[in-house]
Amino acid sequence: MVQRKLQVAVSGLGRMGARHALHFLNLTPRAELVAAFTPDPKEVAWGRQHLEPSGCTIYTDYDEMLKHPGLEAVVVATATTVHAEQAIKAIKADLHVLCEKPLSTSVEMSQAVVDAAKAKPHLKVLCGFSRRFDASYREAWERMDSGSIGRPAIFRSQTCDKLDPSGFFVDYAQYSGGIFVDCNIHDIDLALWYFGQDSVVKSVMAVGITAVQPELRKHKDVDNGVGVVEFWGGKIAYFYSSRMMAAGQHDMTEIIGTEGKLSVNANPMGSLVEMSEASGIRREIPPHYYGRFREAFVTEANEFTAACLDDTKLPFKLSGAVQAVKIGCALQESLNSGRKIYFDETGRRVEKAGL
Amino acid sequence: MVQRKLQVAVSGLGRMGARHALHFLNLTPRAELVAAFTPDPKEVAWGRQHLEPSGCTIYTDYDEMLKHPGLEAVVVATATTVHAEQAIKAIKADLHVLCEKPLSTSVEMSQAVVDAAKAKPHLKVLCGFSRRFDASYREAWERMDSGSIGRPAIFRSQTCDKLDPSGFFVDYAQYSGGIFVDCNIHDIDLALWYFGQDSVVKSVMAVGITAVQPELRKHKDVDNGVGVVEFWGGKIAYFYSSRMMAAGQHDMTEIIGTEGKLSVNANPMGSLVEMSEASGIRREIPPHYYGRFREAFVTEANEFTAACLDDTKLPFKLSGAVQAVKIGCALQESLNSGRKIYFDETGRRVEKAGL
Amino acid sequence: MVQRKLQVAVSGLGRMGARHALHFLNLTPRAELVAAFTPDPKEVAWGRQHLEPSGCTIYTDYDEMLKHPGLEAVVVATATTVHAEQAIKAIKADLHVLCEKPLSTSVEMSQAVVDAAKAKPHLKVLCGFSRRFDASYREAWERMDSGSIGRPAIFRSQTCDKLDPSGFFVDYAQYSGGIFVDCNIHDIDLALWYFGQDSVVKSVMAVGITAVQPELRKHKDVDNGVGVVEFWGGKIAYFYSSRMMAAGQHDMTEIIGTEGKLSVNANPMGSLVEMSEASGIRREIPPHYYGRFREAFVTEANEFTAACLDDTKLPFKLSGAVQAVKIGCALQESLNSGRKIYFDETGRRVEKAGL
Amino acid sequence: MVQRKLQVAVSGLGRMGARHALHFLNLTPRAELVAAFTPDPKEVAWGRQHLEPSGCTIYTDYDEMLKHPGLEAVVVATATTVHAEQAIKAIKADLHVLCEKPLSTSVEMSQAVVDAAKAKPHLKVLCGFSRRFDASYREAWERMDSGSIGRPAIFRSQTCDKLDPSGFFVDYAQYSGGIFVDCNIHDIDLALWYFGQDSVVKSVMAVGITAVQPELRKHKDVDNGVGVVEFWGGKIAYFYSSRMMAAGQHDMTEIIGTEGKLSVNANPMGSLVEMSEASGIRREIPPHYYGRFREAFVTEANEFTAACLDDTKLPFKLSGAVQAVKIGCALQESLNSGRKIYFDETGRRVEKAGL
Repeated sequence: MVQRKLQVAVSGLGRMGARHALHFLNLTPRAELVAAFTPDPKEVAWGRQHLEPSGCTIYTDYDEMLKHPGLEAVVVATATTVHAEQAIKAIKADLHVLCEKPLSTSVEMSQAVVDAAKAKPHLKVLCGFSRRFDASYREAWERMDSGSIGRPAIFRSQTCDKLDPSGFFVDYAQYSGGIFVDCNIHDIDLALWYFGQDSVVKSVMAVGITAVQPELRKHKDVDNGVGVVEFWGGKIAYFYSSRMMAAGQHDMTEIIGTEGKLSVNANPMGSLVEMSEASGIRREIPPHYYGRFREAFVTEANEFTAACLDDTKLPFKLSGAVQAVKIGCALQESLNSGRKIYFDETGRRVEKAGL
Repeated sequence: MVQRKLQVAVSGLGRMGARHALHFLNLTPRAELVAAFTPDPKEVAWGRQHLEPSGCTIYTDYDEMLKHPGLEAVVVATATTVHAEQAIKAIKADLHVLCEKPLSTSVEMSQAVVDAAKAKPHLKVLCGFSRRFDASYREAWERMDSGSIGRPAIFRSQTCDKLDPSGFFVDYAQYSGGIFVDCNIHDIDLALWYFGQDSVVKSVMAVGITAVQPELRKHKDVDNGVGVVEFWGGKIAYFYSSRMMAAGQHDMTEIIGTEGKLSVNANPMGSLVEMSEASGIRREIPPHYYGRFREAFVTEANEFTAACLDDTKLPFKLSGAVQAVKIGCALQESLNSGRKIYFDETGRRVEKAGL
Repeated sequence: MVQRKLQVAVSGLGRMGARHALHFLNLTPRAELVAAFTPDPKEVAWGRQHLEPSGCTIYTDYDEMLKHPGLEAVVVATATTVHAEQAIKAIKADLHVLCEKPLSTSVEMSQAVVDAAKAKPHLKVLCGFSRRFDASYREAWERMDSGSIGRPAIFRSQTCDKLDPSGFFVDYAQYSGGIFVDCNIHDIDLALWYFGQDSVVKSVMAVGITAVQPELRKHKDVDNGVGVVEFWGGKIAYFYSSRMMAAGQHDMTEIIGTEGKLSVNANPMGSLVEMSEASGIRREIPPHYYGRFREAFVTEANEFTAACLDDTKLPFKLSGAVQAVKIGCALQESLNSGRKIYFDETGRRVEKAGL
Repeated sequence: MVQRKLQVAVSGLGRMGARHALHFLNLTPRAELVAAFTPDPKEVAWGRQHLEPSGCTIYTDYDEMLKHPGLEAVVVATATTVHAEQAIKAIKADLHVLCEKPLSTSVEMSQAVVDAAKAKPHLKVLCGFSRRFDASYREAWERMDSGSIGRPAIFRSQTCDKLDPSGFFVDYAQYSGGIFVDCNIHDIDLALWYFGQDSVVKSVMAVGITAVQPELRKHKDVDNGVGVVEFWGGKIAYFYSSRMMAAGQHDMTEIIGTEGKLSVNANPMGSLVEMSEASGIRREIPPHYYGRFREAFVTEANEFTAACLDDTKLPFKLSGAVQAVKIGCALQESLNSGRKIYFDETGRRVEKAGL
């Protein structure tokens, strides 16, 4: 007897949406991609060519797509600005949801998704923090969890994009929520994972510069940011994000404990090839995050599918996504006000925390 | 209109056969795994559980499997001793074949497969030299081909297995053809790829020892071998193979040209995690070749499928597989006779080649 | 005709003083170690054994040592608390001075040394920022200076000591000035070197924890600190210091520019040996800063000697040492007050800088 | 009381001789460089400028130099062709000798030096195998000796020079003894050190090519060589030497045992600086062996001096140098004859060894 497959739709067929669609189509054996939505004519054309022949219906109306017969789950991979709205609609339509990060650049909207999900406890609602599905991050977590580094105390993490001289990031900045919400959101989520989802922020401080794209300032954003987050209980996370890496994408993390340190991707590499040439020894690194995290996205698709079909627990809770956005927004605020922001031991904002 | 999928069977559900089956079942979108053969009851049970629910019929008779309705292609992944026979049968049944390496431990039998394939030029017959499908080896080849290292002249390559104290390799040695045919066959095939498929061997010399498993001598094999192959035209390949690596699998290659060097996997790693601990900085490496080459096997499955469906060329010729076995057997002979073996410029064996 | 040698004395024969003494004795061809001072009986004994046989007089009174006939230069390597006093006395005695870092943990005392030196412009007075003499830091500086990374914008640097469970660092903390003054002073000095000695601080913020030695709090110190320094003109330096590294000393630096990045010692190693063993691939790293910077100290001794003998310029100005202490003290203050500290474009402290 | 210093002379002030002279002059506290010999006017001028002012007498007649009043030791660093003759003369003049490797390119001449030394057992006679003094090679040896890799069985080592397009190596080849005697002599010596000085060669086989400098053939030499040496008792050493490395000098070694592997300099680096730039991540490596082994040469000078002054044992026996030349010459012969060379268990050459 052939096994039942999860009936999945993808919303958005842009860069990341198209990848999600192909992952569910080709690399997620227990899922069947039955529908896709995009309002964009070019993306519609792409879908017609690459998805339709495999039995996937292309919609240009999101609400219509939600009514696709037999549909069980929706992957929301549109622009960040509509993530929350689409996720909530899908939840209300009684569909499982895998929503790209962040749920929203607003804490309130993010919370609204969580609230909608809470009202439908039988649904699986996942925020796509892809690094949570990365084999190396998982290995590091297990090593830490087994006590190999003692008690984790310092967390350093960076998300650094290759320089894109086209100006793309300037336009993008008006919707992205800013570099701390867009880039470091991953690092913040990792800090919460490694330090514990119930960690309470004590203070937040960020600074930044526009070294290559001064027009970012009009959207209150920067191209290089440094943020420091203190947690109650003696833990510190510090972050770096950048849009001007020359060599390529370099996302990396260190978890420093009382008895050791774990690093993830300290020495990035795009392949296993090293070149010895007159100018020295050289290796290339991935140009984009997808080169680094492709496997994690595929794992995400498969695990989401399995959780929906088997009604098993997702690997992490949705509510953490709100906490991550909250910290990201506080960092972005600190960047722009120039001020350090304080919180008390219940996580409530205060003028100046005691020490 | 849904696209047609290649109807594939896998012969052998042992360690590698099971992996091939799952690759074709789950990770090869254009293929459909419709049948599998194994004479082994345990493997039958595994197939019943993992393959049958997806619509794959399990056979215990190879000839019966070849008659599976609509079957188009067979993956031969049984013991090396029956590779050639099964491949030839499948070819005669007018089926495409992906045969695990080596075609046979005998040059004559390997040639018989090539001859059978030649008689059916419309069929795709591929010898599964997995490294040919590895992204890093392909990148290295393209870099070399673009002239980045000048003229390639020296080729160093090793296939080194993790120590298996169970004695597995002793039993295995009676069928494997010996360490140069079983392990270094990959390195030999790579040398032929990088130096050119028409390279003519000038001399072959090998030595070896049994450092950890002296019983290997009864099968005329060793657990550590060093082989050197001269090619006419001023090229040298040298190989190392071992069954006693402490840390894990370490397969690596260097291609040294007149203007540079390319290395593939000089610094093996099992993940992107590095551990700093009281004893220093440490990383783990893959325990088995599958940990290193999984992606290559999946690519192999997809490219073989595409070539069958679209009637396009395979990435390399089957005849090279005979040349690789020929060199591997000569190395094994040199190991056991203690003598250097010479060939003239037409590749014919001679008592002592001129210089 | 035999060349004249600089007549040098070393003050302090503790860990670092003894090393300086041996460097001047054995590895500084143009210098002659003629005197050494220490009030400590054990150190006197060590000096009697190791220095006296080579013609070095051991003093237990610093002022007496300054009167040693023919003395030309003094290396001040005593406890930080007396650096400034001894340096000033030596300057007043018309002697060249190489003073270990920091000049003082107080900005005022540091400035007093600079003032004393200014009054004797014919003397060479050097603050021993050893990394300035390190071949790799110099190479990085030259690469940056040649424009290879565009305009430097972000500077990350860390000084991380191996965990010393003896409690040494707790006692030490009462004199050290705190982790930012003691450890990160090197990183701060490097930031000023790479960003330009005339860089003006815009803001300073630090946080820290006591993860392994809670008693540090009684000396207002921590065992892990993170500090962020903004400079006017769009540059950011961020620092990490730690006293709890499991594997050994790890000091490293990244200089990130608009067109590239330079890292110094991103992958520390104690030797060129790598061990492959059942638990993976491992390397050891230096346990102490001397293992990393020995060559730099020797270069420092030789360059200081040459500058004195030949009346040539020292590689960097003494005044920068005050600027480094100023930043280090501000970080330490921010750590303890929990507040961000602001400066205007002239470097004057203000309540809240404009953005 | 000032300690006595060893009175040392250096013969030859070419590239390596000048370095030895400076090491003994400046970096060997217990030695005094009192004399130097060179017949070359340019080298005389260099010595006048750099050595004479420190009290070193420059001679243009070797025999005269040997009569320098109070002379105790001679460093022979002239062309390989006169190493043995000068070493023997110095020994006969009752002087300690540090002779650059190889003692001679002839086994007989090498043995003559050993015989001369045996006749004067109170003298220290050292062959300058610099890697024996290298901290990393020593660390590897100690790790092996402590049992960390089980029983050593396979030894791989290479000496690879940066490409020198000037044709220098062609002229040099007429005196050097060939690539296996000139380059791999170091690797052979290491093999004897790690496998044990009493290891008996069972067979020797070498091949080579002239990839960049075909004129080397007129001196019976090659620019790339691969050699394999079997030892009785189940051990294999294999070597690679090259004159065409694009990136710089790369000398490296692996010692593979039954329980682990040690690598020395698997990942060469010229400094601790890594560059991230548009073309990837890059590091430079040392252009010459001196960039890699400078510290080892200084240690050699200091240990030789201490052994002479204190009459203590040298770290290794002179007789091994003959064994190394014997193996190097056999490899060179095998390269040119195309034949494998066999030895019996007493080390005597035979037509074909039993297996």
